[in-house]
Amino acid sequence: MSFADRIRHCNSYDPARAIPLRAGGHRIGWLRRDNAEVLARHGKVFSVKHDEARLLVEGSCEHVSDAVDGVVDALVAERRVPKWRNETFDVAPRWGEKPILRLDRGAVPFFGVRAYGVHLNGYRRIGDAYFLWIGRRASNKQVAPGKLDNMVAGGIGNGYGAAATLAKEAEEEAAISAALIARAAAAGALTYRMETKHGIRDDVMFVYDLEVPADFTPSNGDGEIAGFELMPLSDVLERIRKSDDFKFNVNLVILDFAVRHGVLRPDDPEYLDVANGLHRPFD
Amino acid sequence: MSFADRIRHCNSYDPARAIPLRAGGHRIGWLRRDNAEVLARHGKVFSVKHDEARLLVEGSCEHVSDAVDGVVDALVAERRVPKWRNETFDVAPRWGEKPILRLDRGAVPFFGVRAYGVHLNGYRRIGDAYFLWIGRRASNKQVAPGKLDNMVAGGIGNGYGAAATLAKEAEEEAAISAALIARAAAAGALTYRMETKHGIRDDVMFVYDLEVPADFTPSNGDGEIAGFELMPLSDVLERIRKSDDFKFNVNLVILDFAVRHGVLRPDDPEYLDVANGLHRPFD
Repeated sequence: MSFADRIRHCNSYDPARAIPLRAGGHRIGWLRRDNAEVLARHGKVFSVKHDEARLLVEGSCEHVSDAVDGVVDALVAERRVPKWRNETFDVAPRWGEKPILRLDRGAVPFFGVRAYGVHLNGYRRIGDAYFLWIGRRASNKQVAPGKLDNMVAGGIGNGYGAAATLAKEAEEEAAISAALIARAAAAGALTYRMETKHGIRDDVMFVYDLEVPADFTPSNGDGEIAGFELMPLSDVLERIRKSDDFKFNVNLVILDFAVRHGVLRPDDPEYLDVANGLHRPFD
Repeated sequence: MSFADRIRHCNSYDPARAIPLRAGGHRIGWLRRDNAEVLARHGKVFSVKHDEARLLVEGSCEHVSDAVDGVVDALVAERRVPKWRNETFDVAPRWGEKPILRLDRGAVPFFGVRAYGVHLNGYRRIGDAYFLWIGRRASNKQVAPGKLDNMVAGGIGNGYGAAATLAKEAEEEAAISAALIARAAAAGALTYRMETKHGIRDDVMFVYDLEVPADFTPSNGDGEIAGFELMPLSDVLERIRKSDDFKFNVNLVILDFAVRHGVLRPDDPEYLDVANGLHRPFD
């Protein structure tokens, strides 16, 4: 495997296997064709044609969400969507705009709507070398159980912005104080689109960096992380290249960290594929 | 104007107006259709069809370069290519691979071959604020005369790598010592493709950051920069938004700096367009 393979893995989306899901004048999701066939059975809420699907219900966010939730109920019963997570994501035409509906997090890939998350690189510099605090995901996580992860990461639920989500997750996942997380710096956004068992993940990851003091050790409070380890970035990069130890999208966040901090450099033959490939254009 | 407009301006390329230029199995350039018609007159060197052009000459880099130089001579005589710059760029299938030919820098946009450059953000932190050393381009520069520029920037000529070009330009353009430029850190690569008077610019900018000491002042030695000024990044961003003071691609480098250092943040409505839009996928 190469670094570029990690990026390709997260961009397994094939446009030929999906159709756009529209609401009013907006494209709000990408439906895999088998999922579109299933939605066609819910003709009061969705209209499905060969080359596009449409959300038919209009009105307030609550009204639209209720109608879609009725469909999600049926999808969960048929096991096409994993069980309700009781955590909803805003579905809006663009980041920061008014949501058209709120969707249970478990149903997001089925509809292929864009989801937003935050990822925090918790790092130290010792001499000239970078070290990252790496978490191991609990074995009961629904997605990527047991895989290695950033110090903090989480999806942006409705009503939260990026910075608020980061502060909340930092406290719950790693016991990072409000004073310390306030020193985290936004460092960019990464994008990828991959096909999964349930549909299409169309993800935006807001990336933050936080240099932590030598006497800081993260400690998990919500049971989502089994433990943390401070690892040399050079070792982390070797594991990214050679193993599947890291959660699929965390590979991308760490590669971006290595690019931004000059650890991966232009003389690496994969440099341009990595530096440029972490950013999938919006459509 | 908005930040996103600056990025759009650098991505004015319209695929309908160009055809691929191929050499062997590789696509090495994008020819605007009017330029392709001109090349068709040089049938010993290029074959031009409706939907693609081909470089016919094969062999050593010197042999191919000589044949193409003969065509460039004619293009310069017809004023389709600006005068010879006597500085050549490698034309290779990919960054770091063996060049197929070397092309005079002035002819690069005519053929739409990918060109590589380095850009250095020279900065200081004073309190919580960032300041950038900004150069003003000399009034006799062929491209963007009189416009504001990064502290150091330059194209990567044949035989030089990115770091070597940076060190050379840093010394010539801003009198930065070898010891100081050795502290510059690679920070990523930005890509854009724009149509210009002469053809198509398909550019990769390798971006570097250098925090300079308080007692350092850049000083130009090669006549390419009329003068330098240390500007607050907040003022620079305002000028990028509201004026055309900065060279077209320098806007992108500074927006990237603001994203990477957390000065532009996810709560900015343009954040995603900027953070993601600075990276045009390769094709």
